[in-house]
Amino acid sequence: MADRGSAKIGVCYYPEHWPEDMWADDARRMHKGGIRRVRIGEFAWSRLEPEFGRSDFGWLARAIDTLHAEDLGVILGTPTATPPKWLVDRMPDMFAIDLHGRPRGFGSRRHYCFSHAGYRRECARIVTALGAAFGQHPGVVGWQIDNEYGCHDTVRSYSESALLGFRHWLKERYGTVAALNEAWGNVFWSMEYRNFEEIDLPVGAVTETNPAHRTDFDRYSSDQVRELNRVQTDILRVLSPGRDIVHNFMTFHSDFDHYDVMEDLDVATWDSYPLGSLDVFPADPAHKAAFARTGDPDMQAFHHDLYRGAGRGRFGIMEQQPGPVNWADYNADPLPGLVRLWGLEGIAHGAELVSYFRWRQTPFAQEQFHAGLILPNNETDRAYAEVQQLARDLIKLGDLGATAPAKVAIVNSYEARWFLAIQPQGKNFSYVEQIFSIYRALRAMGLDIDIVGPEANLSGYALAVLPSMPYVPPLLAASLEGFEGQLLVMPRTGSRTASHRIPTNLAPGPLAGLLGIKVTRVESFRPHSAIRLVFEGEHCTFDRWREFVTVTEADIVARVDDGRPALTRKGNAWYLAGWPDATLLALILRRLAGEAGLALESFAPGLRTRRRGHWCFLFNYGPEVADISGIVRGELVIGEHVLPVGGAAVWREGPGN
Amino acid sequence: MADRGSAKIGVCYYPEHWPEDMWADDARRMHKGGIRRVRIGEFAWSRLEPEFGRSDFGWLARAIDTLHAEDLGVILGTPTATPPKWLVDRMPDMFAIDLHGRPRGFGSRRHYCFSHAGYRRECARIVTALGAAFGQHPGVVGWQIDNEYGCHDTVRSYSESALLGFRHWLKERYGTVAALNEAWGNVFWSMEYRNFEEIDLPVGAVTETNPAHRTDFDRYSSDQVRELNRVQTDILRVLSPGRDIVHNFMTFHSDFDHYDVMEDLDVATWDSYPLGSLDVFPADPAHKAAFARTGDPDMQAFHHDLYRGAGRGRFGIMEQQPGPVNWADYNADPLPGLVRLWGLEGIAHGAELVSYFRWRQTPFAQEQFHAGLILPNNETDRAYAEVQQLARDLIKLGDLGATAPAKVAIVNSYEARWFLAIQPQGKNFSYVEQIFSIYRALRAMGLDIDIVGPEANLSGYALAVLPSMPYVPPLLAASLEGFEGQLLVMPRTGSRTASHRIPTNLAPGPLAGLLGIKVTRVESFRPHSAIRLVFEGEHCTFDRWREFVTVTEADIVARVDDGRPALTRKGNAWYLAGWPDATLLALILRRLAGEAGLALESFAPGLRTRRRGHWCFLFNYGPEVADISGIVRGELVIGEHVLPVGGAAVWREGPGN
Amino acid sequence: MADRGSAKIGVCYYPEHWPEDMWADDARRMHKGGIRRVRIGEFAWSRLEPEFGRSDFGWLARAIDTLHAEDLGVILGTPTATPPKWLVDRMPDMFAIDLHGRPRGFGSRRHYCFSHAGYRRECARIVTALGAAFGQHPGVVGWQIDNEYGCHDTVRSYSESALLGFRHWLKERYGTVAALNEAWGNVFWSMEYRNFEEIDLPVGAVTETNPAHRTDFDRYSSDQVRELNRVQTDILRVLSPGRDIVHNFMTFHSDFDHYDVMEDLDVATWDSYPLGSLDVFPADPAHKAAFARTGDPDMQAFHHDLYRGAGRGRFGIMEQQPGPVNWADYNADPLPGLVRLWGLEGIAHGAELVSYFRWRQTPFAQEQFHAGLILPNNETDRAYAEVQQLARDLIKLGDLGATAPAKVAIVNSYEARWFLAIQPQGKNFSYVEQIFSIYRALRAMGLDIDIVGPEANLSGYALAVLPSMPYVPPLLAASLEGFEGQLLVMPRTGSRTASHRIPTNLAPGPLAGLLGIKVTRVESFRPHSAIRLVFEGEHCTFDRWREFVTVTEADIVARVDDGRPALTRKGNAWYLAGWPDATLLALILRRLAGEAGLALESFAPGLRTRRRGHWCFLFNYGPEVADISGIVRGELVIGEHVLPVGGAAVWREGPGN
Repeated sequence: MADRGSAKIGVCYYPEHWPEDMWADDARRMHKGGIRRVRIGEFAWSRLEPEFGRSDFGWLARAIDTLHAEDLGVILGTPTATPPKWLVDRMPDMFAIDLHGRPRGFGSRRHYCFSHAGYRRECARIVTALGAAFGQHPGVVGWQIDNEYGCHDTVRSYSESALLGFRHWLKERYGTVAALNEAWGNVFWSMEYRNFEEIDLPVGAVTETNPAHRTDFDRYSSDQVRELNRVQTDILRVLSPGRDIVHNFMTFHSDFDHYDVMEDLDVATWDSYPLGSLDVFPADPAHKAAFARTGDPDMQAFHHDLYRGAGRGRFGIMEQQPGPVNWADYNADPLPGLVRLWGLEGIAHGAELVSYFRWRQTPFAQEQFHAGLILPNNETDRAYAEVQQLARDLIKLGDLGATAPAKVAIVNSYEARWFLAIQPQGKNFSYVEQIFSIYRALRAMGLDIDIVGPEANLSGYALAVLPSMPYVPPLLAASLEGFEGQLLVMPRTGSRTASHRIPTNLAPGPLAGLLGIKVTRVESFRPHSAIRLVFEGEHCTFDRWREFVTVTEADIVARVDDGRPALTRKGNAWYLAGWPDATLLALILRRLAGEAGLALESFAPGLRTRRRGHWCFLFNYGPEVADISGIVRGELVIGEHVLPVGGAAVWREGPGN
Repeated sequence: MADRGSAKIGVCYYPEHWPEDMWADDARRMHKGGIRRVRIGEFAWSRLEPEFGRSDFGWLARAIDTLHAEDLGVILGTPTATPPKWLVDRMPDMFAIDLHGRPRGFGSRRHYCFSHAGYRRECARIVTALGAAFGQHPGVVGWQIDNEYGCHDTVRSYSESALLGFRHWLKERYGTVAALNEAWGNVFWSMEYRNFEEIDLPVGAVTETNPAHRTDFDRYSSDQVRELNRVQTDILRVLSPGRDIVHNFMTFHSDFDHYDVMEDLDVATWDSYPLGSLDVFPADPAHKAAFARTGDPDMQAFHHDLYRGAGRGRFGIMEQQPGPVNWADYNADPLPGLVRLWGLEGIAHGAELVSYFRWRQTPFAQEQFHAGLILPNNETDRAYAEVQQLARDLIKLGDLGATAPAKVAIVNSYEARWFLAIQPQGKNFSYVEQIFSIYRALRAMGLDIDIVGPEANLSGYALAVLPSMPYVPPLLAASLEGFEGQLLVMPRTGSRTASHRIPTNLAPGPLAGLLGIKVTRVESFRPHSAIRLVFEGEHCTFDRWREFVTVTEADIVARVDDGRPALTRKGNAWYLAGWPDATLLALILRRLAGEAGLALESFAPGLRTRRRGHWCFLFNYGPEVADISGIVRGELVIGEHVLPVGGAAVWREGPGN
Repeated sequence: MADRGSAKIGVCYYPEHWPEDMWADDARRMHKGGIRRVRIGEFAWSRLEPEFGRSDFGWLARAIDTLHAEDLGVILGTPTATPPKWLVDRMPDMFAIDLHGRPRGFGSRRHYCFSHAGYRRECARIVTALGAAFGQHPGVVGWQIDNEYGCHDTVRSYSESALLGFRHWLKERYGTVAALNEAWGNVFWSMEYRNFEEIDLPVGAVTETNPAHRTDFDRYSSDQVRELNRVQTDILRVLSPGRDIVHNFMTFHSDFDHYDVMEDLDVATWDSYPLGSLDVFPADPAHKAAFARTGDPDMQAFHHDLYRGAGRGRFGIMEQQPGPVNWADYNADPLPGLVRLWGLEGIAHGAELVSYFRWRQTPFAQEQFHAGLILPNNETDRAYAEVQQLARDLIKLGDLGATAPAKVAIVNSYEARWFLAIQPQGKNFSYVEQIFSIYRALRAMGLDIDIVGPEANLSGYALAVLPSMPYVPPLLAASLEGFEGQLLVMPRTGSRTASHRIPTNLAPGPLAGLLGIKVTRVESFRPHSAIRLVFEGEHCTFDRWREFVTVTEADIVARVDDGRPALTRKGNAWYLAGWPDATLLALILRRLAGEAGLALESFAPGLRTRRRGHWCFLFNYGPEVADISGIVRGELVIGEHVLPVGGAAVWREGPGN
């Protein structure tokens, strides 16, 4: 996408939506706006193959040439998220099937089942043709596979293809049905199977199905995403050597394992819609109101760090919100400056691409309410100027340098999300809310954070947090044993085996020795039925969840009001026996960060920093103008000491930092 | 229904529910109660044709004769809302199909698909038979076609019949599939079709379908209502000459174009259930509580004015609530007096019929909790006496005179409702709430109002309001150009073409010249995320919606706090760039009414007036007793100067008014 | 289950879940814990018959022997709630069908349709085999048929089997279709049938179906539960003479007539989950919070009294919550002491069995979060000690004696629940909430209460309350005529006939003479739209519902603010014309109890008593520690005068009480 240590500005463009005689001017204005990358083609199948057996790649060749002529590197999308009508009519069983047995049909997008072998073949066919035609074009610098896997709840399908695939997958996993029956505990309600052909998908039963059954189906479904993705990458590796292959991931999406999919990709890009994503997030109304026009101060940063980790250091923003969007419940306008700020924040976190969605607002079809850089009448919209400012910022910053490893790590696990969604035990137990609250608390102290996967190497981190992870894989357990930094383990960790069973030694299962505790009971509560405790002189609570911990070798650092352990430690391994409120979480993390020797800040609610190379970035998400003179430790190359809401400042960090 | 300038009291009656020996006494008591019109027969198909090939019209002939003998004019309903079991069993594909593909079957009512050709033939057959039998009967003064089109969400059906009909309709509209693809913008997500047979109904897709696709399906579905209605009116025009043909419309119903259907009818009647309708309306709880036993002060008036417009001056109430109903979430008892007040208010607005539903409360089946004029044990219920009082009122008022055109018009559009429902962009954007709030604000100033359709001639009005109308048809645009009164245009107007696209000149599209503005951006907000502005010294807000307006030729009358235009005017054409709170809306309308030279009142919350002929009516919906001496400008022929809650006063307007 | 006058402690056990070498130790520890009854086998079909034609009863024989060796009486469950996969694959049409036409398939439990003849035969087959094998085993002291009829909404099925069965049932009930049409009032919307084969299930219509149709389908569905139950009891009566046959009923379940099913059973057992049940009950949040860790003070008692009535004096708790459960929205931990308190309260109400669910927490499948007496790692959990304490309590109390008839009766009717659910008329009209509020008010006065069925003999009671009962059967009407105690009749009683019609004499129908009133109108209200009245000097309200009562022979005891009758009496027969708030209900019941000569208490919110034999029990559900010295009237054999939250006290009642 870009040279290491630098970053490019991009845009998403749909030449097929506009008369060909507009293309050259579009390209010229893109370049003038500082844009150097253009993503195209990802929904254009019906123009590439207007009908069965007839293809038309000429227009796309001309579009690429036009962009290339303006020095715009093309990221070419494979169009597999929108198979055309003639194709689906040839294999109508390719649709995903919903929970109620209904096909998820044609008329919008993502209308396919990941398990369908015929559709995989069609994907291979069109990708081969595209790769052959454009794989070596000098203007093509990268490929995007498909578009937003999982959007509109499309990972899990209850089709015949999925059923047959799942049975095969189970056979591979368990070998014998007796082993499966044993692993799942099917004796429980006479759910035992005599052969794999008796196994249905975990849907349509009278009440909840076996959680082990659902866990394996979640794993199977995730694997199919990787399979369909790999069908395409395998082809493009051959036909388009040297180009980066990417996918554009989403906000807080959990239905497939992004780390698995990334094994076949080069750069983890994601689609950043700060206002829309905050609008649909389960935050409290006052918080939503405070940041309705700036976006949450941590949500974008969280995903930058998440996808930088998933991309083994390489990530970018493939779609950046340029104004109001069309898809949230309510769609506010960003404050002036935010379109540039969001881009700059991506760069601060290491993005090598900040690509805005979209070039020109569409005047037709589903997304007419989605702003662009250019209005439908071809006048520039507000965002165009902010993108130009971002381009000027990049020039000022010059060589950005690489993103250094952080001192703090949060371990993220998609499998944990599935486990906790299958049996939340309390309706308000949300993995996403928990990991995000941990991230927010650490970041509000001014820390840079890495978000790493469950197989990451933690050595070198001064502080690591392990959010609730019911099943702890052996590799991670071993890694944690040897970890020398401070480690905070959240409740429910180690409470299940790979087969979604309670470990024979109870929770925390494989971490029992490390943590020196045993969990004998758990409880969940209604909102506002909190358990109270005093920690470092502050009145705090456990909301949502708490556990009854028996200490075997650990020290009890804090107790709840009824005297039971709230926080334990055994050396550097801490265990928190409940869901902390924001105050408690911040205090505990500050305590551990202190033990880890980290320098901490105390920022105003909407101020956030990030370091990249020798640059230190500071962003003001509001709601107040901020005097940042006490924070800045060098000469500002961007911004002023009085930072408006939506403003950004950058300085070169002195040797003392 | 009645002579012009007069009004009749009516009742809905089901002779087939009661022993024949009760009929004569029923008719006698109806007449004694002041009733002169009786609607019958609209659900009696299973008694008219007990089985295939056998009809029994004798009982109906005797019923009509019995009513006629007491000088009760019969409005005969066609029974097509309730086809009997033997009929649906002969053509089971006649059921409408719901959004999830399930037939909406037998067992209640309205179990048919408007698109089904076989069912249309059956309708023609039974109507022909009824028309032949009773079309020239001297006791039959009118016909009601079917019953409450659209009730229970029955306009749109996703059946095979609808699919085939829709494809045909599209072919008629677009000629070629290429034209359709272009109009809809199907290139957007590779949704292009190669022929009309590929087009599905806009349902069952993974996420939202093309808004143009849905818009056309809404138009198609509305057209089918008109078609089925016309099948019946064409027959009755021949077989029952000189009789009024009507349909009974509903409260706030939007799923078909009532103006279209009215082109084949003589009088627009509607079914007025003030308490039930308020209970299910999205009003705030305090408002619901304040008027729970009187009904909203404006809801009935709104529909009177709406349907008087749709009926080209001729309208009536076919079903008037007589006590608690059975179908709202909660069903309160009206305060004493309201049953008469509601009738009188209909008359004030020009109704030529006020017909109560129903004569005797049913002791069986679905509507047992719906009150009538007579209890199931044949004693009179409270409403009977109130109807008698209404009859005495009518005698006092004598010749009522015609309803004069109002000075103020609100333009209503069903198509606008569909556009805004298809892409609300903010969850709280409701056409019905907006147009009703405009109506309420104007009426609270004491104004008489006409509600007119989008093709109405506006000349002669001093003030017109155009609620949000995404697509402005050319005729209306031209009419507005020549309009000489004050015109208030609400946001989103002109923001889409007929094909649900953004106009090439952006919003307000065809009104750009008239209004002198251009809209470059819109935003919607969560409740309580308002934009503030000061207007005429009052602190006001834009809730739900606001727009960024560039002024090309207009003056900026008001700005929001961030300085952007809130209200513009170019001569007499005003544009409001947001969703006003009640205070702002009232101030703006008062300002425009002032410019239009209209005399205004400031009524207490529950006081409302209406003029008909030389009579001025005043109604007190409460919640307080009102001293109306300062309002009354003539000698009261009905009511006193101290008006109780639920009371009505009428005086002859003096020459000075 | 136990000798009359005594009580046994039991446990639910799943030997098939554990290695056989653990069984003997389990049995030993059970006995040591005071346990004398063990329920086993009710979900074990796949182990009893691993495949078609092959059975394996050996393990069960060994399990029974093992338990019997420790003097543990076995209650053997028939496994018909969980047919194995091979069985359902042989008759896939045995699944129940949901409201939307979808099979409720395999993968959890209760996946069968009660109407399916083939499945009834399979039930008979397995029960015959089990009865033959174990019916005369000395260790088998009882049988449980199936498990939790109706759990997961499984009573009503919309299958082909149900359709055919329902038609047959209707033919039996009505003889001719003309009689059915007349009874249902099918003329109403042309819903008349020409033969029974035309009748569908009351589902899938455009809007609500005929309430008479639904009423009969509810009756039919209830009858099928009894039928399937009787298929099994008929077999076991022959094969296992002298053993009690029971079923385990549920909390607030209404979908079938428990009295009917009990006609074929010996003991009514039920499954008591105080915390889970309160969590999902529609109580206000403050109440839920106050009792989140103790359970509602009246909910368990209500069901004890309900099922003691249903069991003709014989009842027990088959499943008693031992800690957090897994199935509520939120699952809190009980306070220490509650596991014992709940058991003791059951005994106070006459239980002959208190059986805890389950022995050992399952480490696999659906209920892993459900606590047991033993942890999955085989350590004892907290509940084990509390069960031991309960065993010591039982020893202290010795011969418990029989439960004497109470002075107060509440008449419970399942049919009434169906009627009111079919046409609630106000969304908040809930039979369960009403009857439970009556129970709570009476119990808070210190009264012992019997809950009796609609065919019970009321003679001997000093006070009886008849909750809203739309249809009053002739036997009950006659019984009430002769009743000599004080009788309070709640609104809506007598408002419908058996065919769900309004009685020809209006409500209260057959009780018109007894009560001396006539109801001419009803209304329902939104929350907080109450009607006010003053009763005995207190400001009270009618919420949810009120009626307009004409007094024919009764006295008006109280009026609402608008002057209409609120409470009437004719001799000892009182009628309440609205839904009372808690204050009003308590005042009225206190008044009637006073007239009935009953001695009353005024307890703190969480204190409750119950008498059994010569023992008086007192329980403190909190939220405060209670000084009970003023209440205790004898020497305490259990507990102290200062009773902690979760504490229980028992004394021998002196002669003066």
